[in-house]
Order: sequence, then C-alpha cells, then structure tokens
Amino acid sequence: MKKHNFSAGPSILPQEVFEKASQAVLDFDNTGLSLIEISHRSKEFVAVYDKAVALVKELLYVPETHEVLFLQGGASMQFLMTAINLMKNEGGKAAYVDTGAWSSKAIKEAKLFGEVEVVATSKDTNYNYIPKGYTIPSDADYVHITTNNTIFGTQFKEFPTTEVPLVADMSSDIFSKPVDVSKFGIIYAGAQKNLGPAGATLVIIQKDLLGNTGRTIPSMLDYQIHIKGESMFNTPPVFAIYVSMLNLEYMKAQGGLKAVEKHNEEKAAMLYNEIDNNPSFVNSVAKEDRSLMNVVFLLKDESKDAEFLAACAEAGISNVKGHRSVGGFRASIYNAMPKESVQALIDVMKKF
Amino acid sequence: MKKHNFSAGPSILPQEVFEKASQAVLDFDNTGLSLIEISHRSKEFVAVYDKAVALVKELLYVPETHEVLFLQGGASMQFLMTAINLMKNEGGKAAYVDTGAWSSKAIKEAKLFGEVEVVATSKDTNYNYIPKGYTIPSDADYVHITTNNTIFGTQFKEFPTTEVPLVADMSSDIFSKPVDVSKFGIIYAGAQKNLGPAGATLVIIQKDLLGNTGRTIPSMLDYQIHIKGESMFNTPPVFAIYVSMLNLEYMKAQGGLKAVEKHNEEKAAMLYNEIDNNPSFVNSVAKEDRSLMNVVFLLKDESKDAEFLAACAEAGISNVKGHRSVGGFRASIYNAMPKESVQALIDVMKKF
Repeated sequence: MKKHNFSAGPSILPQEVFEKASQAVLDFDNTGLSLIEISHRSKEFVAVYDKAVALVKELLYVPETHEVLFLQGGASMQFLMTAINLMKNEGGKAAYVDTGAWSSKAIKEAKLFGEVEVVATSKDTNYNYIPKGYTIPSDADYVHITTNNTIFGTQFKEFPTTEVPLVADMSSDIFSKPVDVSKFGIIYAGAQKNLGPAGATLVIIQKDLLGNTGRTIPSMLDYQIHIKGESMFNTPPVFAIYVSMLNLEYMKAQGGLKAVEKHNEEKAAMLYNEIDNNPSFVNSVAKEDRSLMNVVFLLKDESKDAEFLAACAEAGISNVKGHRSVGGFRASIYNAMPKESVQALIDVMKKF
Repeated sequence: MKKHNFSAGPSILPQEVFEKASQAVLDFDNTGLSLIEISHRSKEFVAVYDKAVALVKELLYVPETHEVLFLQGGASMQFLMTAINLMKNEGGKAAYVDTGAWSSKAIKEAKLFGEVEVVATSKDTNYNYIPKGYTIPSDADYVHITTNNTIFGTQFKEFPTTEVPLVADMSSDIFSKPVDVSKFGIIYAGAQKNLGPAGATLVIIQKDLLGNTGRTIPSMLDYQIHIKGESMFNTPPVFAIYVSMLNLEYMKAQGGLKAVEKHNEEKAAMLYNEIDNNPSFVNSVAKEDRSLMNVVFLLKDESKDAEFLAACAEAGISNVKGHRSVGGFRASIYNAMPKESVQALIDVMKKF
C-alpha cells in the first residue's frame, strides 16, 4: 500500500514521475542504455537539460535578464555562493532577514565575506512570524530572505520592496505558486521539495549582478563560470535533473503554477481549518504568515504525542513528527501531496 | 537491444544495479515509498549510507586513521576543497604532478590558496606518459596526482614515495584494483565511472591532516564539518549514494578488488593486443603507463575515422570517439564492461 508521505524533504513527488524515472533507469528513451550510464554531453541528455531549463523559464516567466542553472550542493552551498558572488571584496555588506534555522546558517556563511546586518528577526518568539516594516540599508550589496521556513511553518506572502538586489532561498516553496522573478537578483532552491530528488540545486540569477565584486572566486563557486558552461562546467547530477524535468512537465500539464497554487491553497485551508476547530490541537504561527507548505501544530496535551503518532502510523501516515527545535507535529504538504492524504490526516485528528 | 557502452563517464554500471535501482525508485525496500521521496535522515536511508561507507572501507581496507565521505560537486569541487583544507594560510605550498587536463584544472584552483610547484609534467608530448624520477619538496603541504587520465589514456602503476601527504584524484580508476589507502592523505573520486551515477563524490581522508591550516573555511568546503555530520551536514544525494551502495555490493560479490583487477587486466590486454597487432591502428602511450580504464587509439589513416565510427555504430558500439584534444578513439572499459563488449569492438577492428 502506498503511504501518505508528509516528509519535509526529500519529499513526495507525483507517482507518474516515479514511474517514468524508474523506467529511464532501465532504458532511457529507447536508447538501449540506462539514463545513469549515458554521457552528460550526449545529445539525449543535453536535450533533457535544455528542456528542464525551458520549463523553468516557462513556468516562472523568467525574464531574459536572468539565467537558469542546475548545480549541486543544495541551499547550503548557495549560502556561500550568493555571498562570494555578490559581496564586494572591499567594504562588502549584506542585509539578512532572520526567519529561522536556515536563515541563520546563511548568515553564518555570509559573515566570512563581509559585514552582515541582520535587519529583522523573529527569534524573540521562536520564529513564529515573518518580520515586517524593517529598513534595508541602501548601501547593502544585497538583501537575503528565506521565503518559506520548513521548521517553523512560516512563509513570506509578500516580498520586501527594495532597491538593492533581493536574494531568496526558495528551497521549500519554489513552484508552489507564481512568483515575479524580475523582482529577484538571485533565487535558489535545493530540488528536494517541489522540484525533484535530492542532488540538484536550481539557481536563477540576474546576469548583470555578476562580476562586480573585485574578488577572485574559485571556479566551482563562480556563477559566471557555470553560466558559461551551461551547468556543465563539471559533470551535472544527471538523474536529479532528469527527474526534475519530468516533474516540471507534470506541473505544466496540471495547468501551470496558478493551478498548482489553487490546489495548495485548498489543501492548506483544509488542514488549518481542522487545527483551528479541533480543541485538541493548536498552531501558534501568526495567521497571515502561515506556510502553505509546512503546517506545524501541537497537541494541547503533549503527553499524548506518542499516541497521536501511533494513530497516524496506523493510518499509513508517515513523517508527521515535528522538528526537534519546535516539537509537536509537522505536515509537509508539497505540490504532489493529494487532498486524499490531507484528508486521511484530518480523519485521524478528528477521531483523536 | 542493449548497446556496448564505451562512454568515458558517466558510464556503464552492472545491469543488476540498474534493475535494483529502477525498482527502488518505484518502491524502496518494501517501505511503500519511492527511494527519492524518503528523508535522508530516515532510518532506512541512514542504513543505506552506513552500508555504503562500510563497503568502501571493506573493499579498500581503509585504515582507522581515515574517514569516508560521500559529498557533491565531483572532482572539480575537490580541486578546491583539497587545497583549502590542506594548504597553510601563511606560506602555504603544494606540489602537483601534471598529467593532463584534469591535473591542470586542479592546479588552477590550488593557485588561489598558495604557492603551487609543478614538480613534473608530460605536457611536452601531449601527456602520453606518466612522469617519473622527480623530486617532491619536503616543505610542501601535500603532493597531488591524477591516478588515471581519461583523455590521454595513461595511468599511474606505481605511486610516488614521499613524506608529504599524497593527495590523489582517483575519479576514473578507483575500485578498479586494490590500493594501499594508508599511503594516501586524501583520495577523492567523482562517482560516475566505477562507483555510481553522477552526483556523488567519494572522499577518503586521513583525519589528522585536517584543522592545521590556520584558515577560515566555509562550512560546505570544510572536511571536518562533513566528517562531524557524517556526510549529512547538508542533504546528501540520496539516489546516487544508494546506487553506489548497490554497485559496491556487486563488487564484493564478484570477489572484491583483486578479482575486479584481474578482469580489468584481461579486458585491457585483449584490446591493447589487437591495437598492437592490427596494422591499421596505433596507440602512442608509453607501454608501461597504458591505462587499463581508457584505451586510446588512432587509425593510421585518419581519413577513415568516420567510416570506423559508422562500423562501430552498426555493431551497437557507442561512445568510442576520442576526446577532441587528442582525436582518434577512446574505449573506456570500466569495471562493468563485459569481455563480450570488448570482443565486439575487437571484431569491428579486425574487419576494418
């Protein structure tokens, strides 16, 4: 029996994508070869790569000013790459909004390359809201945000308006809704939520921001080198890019990101509605900042946590335990999560 | 029909590995979930990771002094990581043996972190031999070699004896034969030849070499951080590690690396024998340095190159075109290449 997989990432993808990926590992596109034994420079794989990039551009309406890359190393590598590529070598300065564990990690890496000003933080209440009304210094090389916070269940619904380049870690909500890419200097995302398997990292970069730091950048950390090599300066993660391409095709077939957004809003409403109306549960995130991707909730009587997890397991529901830094529960309801699975969880909550 | 895949990398893996990997993408180990939708911190994947590491240690007899990691970014990222982790911040110096394109790339990155002394090079004859009899300065922080050179078809059969830590890029011949790991400070290898699919990088490190540079190292580039996190400081490439584990299991079942080596020696002998005895072909690599992994050869009459490639294609032989920097042909005969495929190529050569 297929489980209801609420994992925070790597996470659920459409069944159709699993089936096509499985087939390609045996015989890729009738080439007589497995997907994972072909050269990344073969015309067959270059076509896959080109299609993946084209679908990213199409689904997100990426403007001509921006370039799309598939790299490795996840958001953790981007914490470093964004800073080294954008922060001036002399007198470099960047602004960061601190909305949780991932922002803090990004801040730590950026500090190696210049001055970091944390312009806002919600640490005072264990990150249960998204800060608003802060000032971004106009002399910052960029401002960095984490658009969705998997651990704390918060999400930016509006992005800061600023004249400095806006850099966003969208690892956990990219492709969950339309986004105006033209407003961002860099968007990056580890693939393993709404895009594909672990092992690929999507980066969308405004080209004219690059090459202005006066810094010597090692090749593998240099966006300009990866742009020149069309993500093949080094051997790319072939399988992860292929599966991402399949999933992008799937999203397009669903009607694009507006349709995806509507589905996500409906699923999240179902679950938040249950939490708000069920006297046993509570969600302590500011209502306007609630994540549509990661729904966190607590049992009012914590002593029943284990009992609730057992009831979930009984119903084929996996991975709803909350992160250790907040406790309670977390239901990650990414794009591929069907309403039936959300309903299965609600049914357990109702009975409890 | 299954093709004879002579690709230089990503490259052939055992059919049994493709079959198991394909099944795991549909349903991993009867968990009711796809391998690529499970958390990297799930007990099921942690068991896969632990098994992969244990098999690396077993097959290569890795001593207790060394640690095994699975990272991302391929050899290209290791060019940077080895230098930043080993070269002293003040007065750092490293020795490099230049045996071709990949050595040159490693040298380029190392130069960003200190003085690089190229102690030997075979560039004078377009890298058709492995330099011998050079002196490695005793004050170098390390000496770096590329043990097998895919483009030029050369391979170290003996490693330099030195008191400074020996760092080796073994991307294209690791697991092709036994190696005395205790003699190396760092061994690294992109997975996509004899280990697994593109997207994982194996690193074997002598632990006591780390932490001595006086340098601030960004987290993602710091071996000590990855050792502490057991390769899960960031989300690891789940699929690529899983497939590598399957392939390591396969090698063990074949009888380990001595059996693998014997098979590789026999295959290479078949092919070099044909090249040496067939008046139409020539191999210009110094005989004692011929690679057992990548067999390069030229037609004496270059005008027939296209005709030969067509004859290969006719026989289901793919990817034997040589790299553009040397021309001619290259047959990559990694571990998983069966003798039948080598014989198929020899048959075409005989007829030609």
